Amino acid sequence: MAKDWTVSRYILQRLKQAGADHLFGVPGDYVLDFLDEVLASPVRWVGTCNELNAGYAADGYARMNGIGGAVVTYGVGGLSILNAVAGAFAEQVPLIVVSGAPPARRREAGARVHHLVDTYQLQLDVYRKITAAAVQLTDPETAPAEIDRVLAASLARKLPGYIELPADMAGKPCRAPDPNWRPVAPVSDPAQLAAAVAETAARFDRAEHPLALVGMELARQRLGSDALRLVETIEIPFASMLSSKSLLPEFHPQFVGIYQGGWSRESVRRQVEEADCLLALGAWMTDLDTGLFSTHLDPARTIFADSGRVRIGETVFENVQLGDFVRALVAALRPRSYLESHPAQPRQPRAPFVAQPACGLTAPRLYECLGGFLDDQMVLLAEPGDAFCAAPDFLIEEAENFIVQTYYASIGYCTPAALGVAVARPDKRPVVLTGDGALQMTAQELSTLIRQRCPAIVVVVNNDGYLVERELHVDGAYNDLQMWHYAKLPGVFDHAGDFAFGSRAATEEELVAALDRARREPDKLHLIEAWLPNRDCSEGLRRLGESFRRQKL
Amino acid sequence: MAKDWTVSRYILQRLKQAGADHLFGVPGDYVLDFLDEVLASPVRWVGTCNELNAGYAADGYARMNGIGGAVVTYGVGGLSILNAVAGAFAEQVPLIVVSGAPPARRREAGARVHHLVDTYQLQLDVYRKITAAAVQLTDPETAPAEIDRVLAASLARKLPGYIELPADMAGKPCRAPDPNWRPVAPVSDPAQLAAAVAETAARFDRAEHPLALVGMELARQRLGSDALRLVETIEIPFASMLSSKSLLPEFHPQFVGIYQGGWSRESVRRQVEEADCLLALGAWMTDLDTGLFSTHLDPARTIFADSGRVRIGETVFENVQLGDFVRALVAALRPRSYLESHPAQPRQPRAPFVAQPACGLTAPRLYECLGGFLDDQMVLLAEPGDAFCAAPDFLIEEAENFIVQTYYASIGYCTPAALGVAVARPDKRPVVLTGDGALQMTAQELSTLIRQRCPAIVVVVNNDGYLVERELHVDGAYNDLQMWHYAKLPGVFDHAGDFAFGSRAATEEELVAALDRARREPDKLHLIEAWLPNRDCSEGLRRLGESFRRQKL
Repeated sequence: MAKDWTVSRYILQRLKQAGADHLFGVPGDYVLDFLDEVLASPVRWVGTCNELNAGYAADGYARMNGIGGAVVTYGVGGLSILNAVAGAFAEQVPLIVVSGAPPARRREAGARVHHLVDTYQLQLDVYRKITAAAVQLTDPETAPAEIDRVLAASLARKLPGYIELPADMAGKPCRAPDPNWRPVAPVSDPAQLAAAVAETAARFDRAEHPLALVGMELARQRLGSDALRLVETIEIPFASMLSSKSLLPEFHPQFVGIYQGGWSRESVRRQVEEADCLLALGAWMTDLDTGLFSTHLDPARTIFADSGRVRIGETVFENVQLGDFVRALVAALRPRSYLESHPAQPRQPRAPFVAQPACGLTAPRLYECLGGFLDDQMVLLAEPGDAFCAAPDFLIEEAENFIVQTYYASIGYCTPAALGVAVARPDKRPVVLTGDGALQMTAQELSTLIRQRCPAIVVVVNNDGYLVERELHVDGAYNDLQMWHYAKLPGVFDHAGDFAFGSRAATEEELVAALDRARREPDKLHLIEAWLPNRDCSEGLRRLGESFRRQKL
Repeated sequence: MAKDWTVSRYILQRLKQAGADHLFGVPGDYVLDFLDEVLASPVRWVGTCNELNAGYAADGYARMNGIGGAVVTYGVGGLSILNAVAGAFAEQVPLIVVSGAPPARRREAGARVHHLVDTYQLQLDVYRKITAAAVQLTDPETAPAEIDRVLAASLARKLPGYIELPADMAGKPCRAPDPNWRPVAPVSDPAQLAAAVAETAARFDRAEHPLALVGMELARQRLGSDALRLVETIEIPFASMLSSKSLLPEFHPQFVGIYQGGWSRESVRRQVEEADCLLALGAWMTDLDTGLFSTHLDPARTIFADSGRVRIGETVFENVQLGDFVRALVAALRPRSYLESHPAQPRQPRAPFVAQPACGLTAPRLYECLGGFLDDQMVLLAEPGDAFCAAPDFLIEEAENFIVQTYYASIGYCTPAALGVAVARPDKRPVVLTGDGALQMTAQELSTLIRQRCPAIVVVVNNDGYLVERELHVDGAYNDLQMWHYAKLPGVFDHAGDFAFGSRAATEEELVAALDRARREPDKLHLIEAWLPNRDCSEGLRRLGESFRRQKL
């Protein structure tokens, strides 16, 4: 069956093949021809209120789905979404941005057209810095290869990609896509891989207390099941980090806890730091994942595998891919018998949360209650802020049930990201744990959650200001916010009034009632404003604040 | 009197000297030491809901005030505000961004700290593309000169400037600022200036129908009064453009109208295009200012003065500054007597708008009513969209009473920009004319208007979707929006409920009643949702749509 291929259709076909069944974005005149093709394609369009939020949504989608895509117009769109793309770059999320652009005759004339900042290369140059590959399509002959190149680089390196599609290029005929195309995963150097595995095995053999530290890069490369097979086969204890929280099940008998350097629970810190062979797999040593660089990992006893290489002591094995390394270790390492000395305990049913009558809500009780509320069908999105600090204490079974930006830490991310999660996985229910300051950044995307009928639960921790800043530093008036009636937001965005509901919980009883209602109405959106005393926060944030004030960043 | 100068205080002193009495922004840990100094200084802090909005607000402030400043944290802040800075670059607005950054010891170690995208140079490199000057401060010895360099370049070229202030640099002692410092304005080459003036005078002398076309660059360089003196002294007719609308008074007897190429009123088009000596002063020939490049200006009869040069026929006079040129022409050109043949007409009182009973609101009647409502104390901010297309028909007397982004055209700009306008000029009342799509982009900044007690009037033209896109192209489902209860927004953001009010006007009577109430309450914020039939729009937009569909961009 013949199909008339155009550059737009080619892009859509490749995005679909790569797994993007939805695209997020905002229309604008330079991209309307492409959007017409989106509507005519099997890819579903999800319009958002602004471009930054489209980027966050596509990032959340990509974390669930392996790839995400966003469509924007030139300049005003391409530069508004930029922070979301930068975050995806920092956190290794393959997010493809398709940006419309002025047509060739305007570009070639250097015409001053609307949305142009300066030169016609500026936006491309900016995107080159925050993508695995970026292209301005100028020739339908070369466009297919260029599109393939961007997608392949993005998927291989788990980084964003950028396709600039001038308006006159969108409908240009081009060759058909090769249906057998698959992006090629990066390949390890066999000799380097073998040498790294052998050296690891030799050290592992001599160790009495080996331990695996499973990190963020495993999560981004979707190597959770490989990592689980490794730790179960060789039967050693494992710890995760905040950025890789729940990558392996937190109810697993070999799980020892979340390692955060000096911020860890003491028993976890000692087990990790005293291991005599530590397999640090995809562990990124970022400040917030290491308790502000308060880790003490002896390089002589640690094997670092990440970023395409393995480092053991002074030796670096280049071109060793994390997945190849993890899978090779399964056969190469002598199994231990951790569970003999640490038998699996029967999983204790969590004591139900009982609201104290007429008792004002506090942060510890809020998090305790939420911890008991989450179930395996829920995906928790924890905003950088107090949510992020409270998160280590939520026990979560499934990798995909927890999303946090521990490294880029862009507040406002979680509400739009929940849209991406909900669209990617209608079988899951997003639970956003956000702050008042964070919600104010991107509050309008509640509207798109409602429009798309995403039954999210959004818990807004209202503690009257930027609490994190108050804790990290002397408090200043710049941390004050306008007080909103958060619970009224659903009434603004849900015109029909039949899908989204807001409530305020200032007492434990009100919180329990609101969560109960949200659970009883699994097909509705619930926003719950948790009203906390000013400066009330999690123990985690208190500890973070102390570290920051001591270290001055 | 000794004062202990630090890098932070130096920056604040210079910003204050340059005219920034307020700074807009969002706190973040890398910039808190600087913000402490802001609070302790005479510069007032205006916190916004997110960084993009801070940038728009600072842009609006700069348009009223000559300079604007925004403060953000690194990465998540610096890249979120970027689109606003790009818009300021395109539209020649001196907007200074101060961004916090990680301290030197982290930068020198290449540490992976939160908010870092990739290298520690990335953000600086991006800003170099969209500023007159950009600096990363790394040494308190050189910081004063670097800060002066950025401010001087920004003010001279009317473009943004960027100061990256690492957290450990904020409190470092530095030398005192020279109190006599003034940024040096760019200087014309005297010989080139004289030659350009002589050639202009020779051509002007021979002309029978000279006309001045006053453009955007005059507005940005604050040359309105010089331009007015010129046209009044030599007594010739003048036209403005949409981007320079109201730069010279629109009730002036020499004013012929707004020139927009083929989109102009026919009488205006002919007068401009048939002038036998056209003084095009600071006129930028952007697509939306030229009716999509449908101007017919004969280069043999036109003198183009802009971008630091004068072009007459084939000759280019370099290094001729617009202000010097305009002022020199006052004495050099032989006065005419336009008013003899076109005597000033007594200003007709506008016929009052009389609401038709029970008559549904339409776009033409909405704009007619608003045209009569505006007074000299109001600043109209017209959003790119239908507002922008209707704008030429509003007669506005004072230059500073009209703000529009005709070139960069970033929708969502006007609501946050109104915050900047209101803060800069408490004697003025901002009137925002926006669309539903535009308001959804940046709606949360209504909250800051309320917090700062800015008695803005926000008219939201609710026509159920992205109307401009519907008109420019075949209509697609991507132009649909979630329907909001816009009139309920003030009830969310105004916690006390005593300052901001929302109403919906679906009929002419409701519109008149809402505007009457807004006028009777000059110290309150009023949001008026103007409910229009889908696809109803101004004549201007209808014409724009036809041109776009014909030309395909």
